[in-house]
Amino acid sequence: MNNIPIISFVGASGVGKTTLLEKVITLLSKKGYRIGIIKHDAHTFEIDHEGKDSFRHKKAGAKTVVLSSPEKVAVVRDVRKEMSINSIRFDFLPDNLDIIITEGYKRAKNPKIEVIRKALSPKSVCKGDKHLIAYAADVKPKRLAVADAWNPKVRIFDINDAKSIADFIEKKFLKLQRKDKGIYLMVNGKDIPLKPFIANLLIQAVNGMIDSLKDCRDADSIDIRIRK
Amino acid sequence: MNNIPIISFVGASGVGKTTLLEKVITLLSKKGYRIGIIKHDAHTFEIDHEGKDSFRHKKAGAKTVVLSSPEKVAVVRDVRKEMSINSIRFDFLPDNLDIIITEGYKRAKNPKIEVIRKALSPKSVCKGDKHLIAYAADVKPKRLAVADAWNPKVRIFDINDAKSIADFIEKKFLKLQRKDKGIYLMVNGKDIPLKPFIANLLIQAVNGMIDSLKDCRDADSIDIRIRK
Repeated sequence: MNNIPIISFVGASGVGKTTLLEKVITLLSKKGYRIGIIKHDAHTFEIDHEGKDSFRHKKAGAKTVVLSSPEKVAVVRDVRKEMSINSIRFDFLPDNLDIIITEGYKRAKNPKIEVIRKALSPKSVCKGDKHLIAYAADVKPKRLAVADAWNPKVRIFDINDAKSIADFIEKKFLKLQRKDKGIYLMVNGKDIPLKPFIANLLIQAVNGMIDSLKDCRDADSIDIRIRK
Repeated sequence: MNNIPIISFVGASGVGKTTLLEKVITLLSKKGYRIGIIKHDAHTFEIDHEGKDSFRHKKAGAKTVVLSSPEKVAVVRDVRKEMSINSIRFDFLPDNLDIIITEGYKRAKNPKIEVIRKALSPKSVCKGDKHLIAYAADVKPKRLAVADAWNPKVRIFDINDAKSIADFIEKKFLKLQRKDKGIYLMVNGKDIPLKPFIANLLIQAVNGMIDSLKDCRDADSIDIRIRK
């Protein structure tokens, strides 16, 4: 699961990130891709107040509330500080996604598309950011001084051309061979990168240890949590 | 984390589970207990339609949407079949809770309190269930034929006496010594119980394997995920 691609839609407030992303998601999900979304909210959203009956328990003081139905699960959890993209991915996203798209997270170290609206974007929020791969802008490429100025290789799309943006994402991130398998290790809340040799060693060692336990032979998925 | 107590509030539809539970949560959370709630919904709840802007991406076709702010995180995930309490706990609840309370799940194998309202409860939904520990009823104990009939040891509370119910839960489940530490193993999505000897063996083996990796010395928390 280490290699589910992550891409971020960033930009100044009010430029239309949600609207553009909504169109891109519709196009990609119609093609059958499984998409996970992480939306950054600098303020406190109000979902648990809106949720009628569902979140009365949250208001009553519960730290985490889960609603479970045969079709979907909803969770609201209090946190002490903002979670990183990696922690969110580990704690909340399933392993079977094709791509994770974030709205916001302009400082993240993953490929980014910046949404630009002339009237609201006095300058790029990603200027100089080597992770920027494209602009979606309401100005013509030649007039997009903000981009031309520092990196002519960054692609420029029309802000209303969701189809070209979805195709660009598909070609760049989704046509690759998918490899979900592997090992993912998190220690003290931090993602630990593993070289292939070490990863294989750990996989084989864990397999060897649990293989003789009841119901554990030929495991396709193993989750271990240790707390001290 | 294997021993965070779980208790379920069950009962016929409309008897007032949500209202009673709301009062109990308020009382326990004011005492400082950290509570996680799992609410069972046989139908499809509508949170992602209510969530204004927040869940437009979900409607557009994303399988999982996460909203993250500095104070809380909200998640809506599509599932193919209803998740078990254990899977929900593993996937969505943090480790630092004092108690997990479910609303619904009358077939769960954990202690249960049944809410009874004479007009709506022709018979107990937990009759004969050895996990039933109490009734919260709007009828006097002597008249609660449904309970008397089969287990006189089950406690009977007034449905409006949330304080006595909260005290009962506190005394029975929250005054115990808490031990969060340990190992939790899930294989092919199934919770694998471990005897203490095996648990220790696995903890020490995993520790030994990762101890020499960068940033992994003296780990207080370790998460490993393997997918094949």
